[in-house]
Amino acid sequence: MIIDRLYRAVEERGPVCLGLDPSPELLPAGLWEEASSPAEAFLEFNRRIVDATLDVVACYKVQIAHYEALGVAGLACYRDTLRYIRARGGLAIGDVKRGDIGSTAERYAQAHFRGDFEADFITLNPYLGSDTLAPFLPDLERGDKGLFLLIRTSNPSAQELQELPCFSPHAPKPVPLYLRVAELVAHWGERLVGKCGYSAIGGVVGGTAREALARVREEFRQLFLLVPGYGAQGARGEDVAGAFREGNGAVVVAARYLIGAHRGRPAPERRFPQYAREAALAMREDIWRWIGR
Amino acid sequence: MIIDRLYRAVEERGPVCLGLDPSPELLPAGLWEEASSPAEAFLEFNRRIVDATLDVVACYKVQIAHYEALGVAGLACYRDTLRYIRARGGLAIGDVKRGDIGSTAERYAQAHFRGDFEADFITLNPYLGSDTLAPFLPDLERGDKGLFLLIRTSNPSAQELQELPCFSPHAPKPVPLYLRVAELVAHWGERLVGKCGYSAIGGVVGGTAREALARVREEFRQLFLLVPGYGAQGARGEDVAGAFREGNGAVVVAARYLIGAHRGRPAPERRFPQYAREAALAMREDIWRWIGR
Repeated sequence: MIIDRLYRAVEERGPVCLGLDPSPELLPAGLWEEASSPAEAFLEFNRRIVDATLDVVACYKVQIAHYEALGVAGLACYRDTLRYIRARGGLAIGDVKRGDIGSTAERYAQAHFRGDFEADFITLNPYLGSDTLAPFLPDLERGDKGLFLLIRTSNPSAQELQELPCFSPHAPKPVPLYLRVAELVAHWGERLVGKCGYSAIGGVVGGTAREALARVREEFRQLFLLVPGYGAQGARGEDVAGAFREGNGAVVVAARYLIGAHRGRPAPERRFPQYAREAALAMREDIWRWIGR
Repeated sequence: MIIDRLYRAVEERGPVCLGLDPSPELLPAGLWEEASSPAEAFLEFNRRIVDATLDVVACYKVQIAHYEALGVAGLACYRDTLRYIRARGGLAIGDVKRGDIGSTAERYAQAHFRGDFEADFITLNPYLGSDTLAPFLPDLERGDKGLFLLIRTSNPSAQELQELPCFSPHAPKPVPLYLRVAELVAHWGERLVGKCGYSAIGGVVGGTAREALARVREEFRQLFLLVPGYGAQGARGEDVAGAFREGNGAVVVAARYLIGAHRGRPAPERRFPQYAREAALAMREDIWRWIGR
């Protein structure tokens, strides 16, 4: 199962998930100016970052919004970035946060698991309930694919809904909404647990929400966690350590912190892949230190 | 403001929102076979449906998943469909249900309000809170654009989260989560009310959820409602009537019911636009009858 591959990747290469979220201001000026189009510049940038980091990161997360902003050409670049990662033997998470129902969710499964935008994992938004993931289950059952459902996000306004006290059928007292979501996500994934002990349906919990991270990790042992928020959003090794169980069970995402590591350094055009690699190694050390590896 | 244009469209042409969600099995066989690609067949189908219905529907909703399933070529068709609707003077709702944060939400605003995929309105998922809509607000403040936030969706599993009893700061007793979401959405839109009395930030409430529709309509008078679920999902005029106030304040979406009206009828290849038009007129009559127009 794909979740076993992700687990092994964390064992072998550490828990860093590199976010390939390029933007014009993050690219070295020379690369940007020499490319014939923004989408071409993004693709070249991504390829070189991937080449330099394959052996030191667990996986890549590609945020589709950064490509969608460039329109149809940008989405061709999103497709080609996913293909490149997977062709090189890397694991690709399509961060698409889709959430829809019935025949519409089926189209998303086609697009992101079987079509142009095929990834190994994608992120989904749970607000519409289990109808959202039903069309993805056959691929999960075959062991080919995995999902990460949003549970507690890393942004400041996440608390507006996600921390709302609500009643859960199994809890005597109100719990924050995100915990009820975590409970549902864990339930949906019960039948899909790999040899590694984690389910092909994982959850997203932000590294900036330490308490949520600790509670979800403690209560739902089979949930593999995708933890955004490291670096630019403020989380550090200390904050994300609670996501792990025996040094595995989570990957921690950083984007700008890694792919923008060349900013203000010498020879960024030539050396940006090396800077990204060094930043990924430093991030891995920081996390390993806190989880005792 | 764009919400005033939508209000006037409902006054002049009725409350039908035609869903342009093409799929291979919905297209007349001849059209499908003659086209050089699926995306080209979709575009030709959409154009002819738009031409035949512009004067009898309030607006069009284009569900991006149906295009995303065809990959990059499909998204070019999505772009061209939106452009065609808007060039013909129609109002286009991009049903993208995006929901992300900070710099990522900013990219979505760029993609769907200013870039290749420009629509007049788009749908958003509120699970991540107000950070999701912040980057869209400048366009709303200029009066150019509008949003519909998911409140209570039309699918069976919507109740798993959306009906969960939760505490709202302003309610003495627990309320279903969707009502708290409606309250937040109404609050976010308070500053953006047009001459028509409705805000540029509206809500999505499914026509299959009659009680939710009635409660949201009653408690949040400035919320313009986008009501899916008519036809194939089972809602009829009687079910959606509660969404309206004095014959306006909502549009009701049907997709398959309208664009698939040619199935099993004579000469579908030639006459499908006419069948869609007739179905839209029948749907309008059905709704008007229940709202007393």
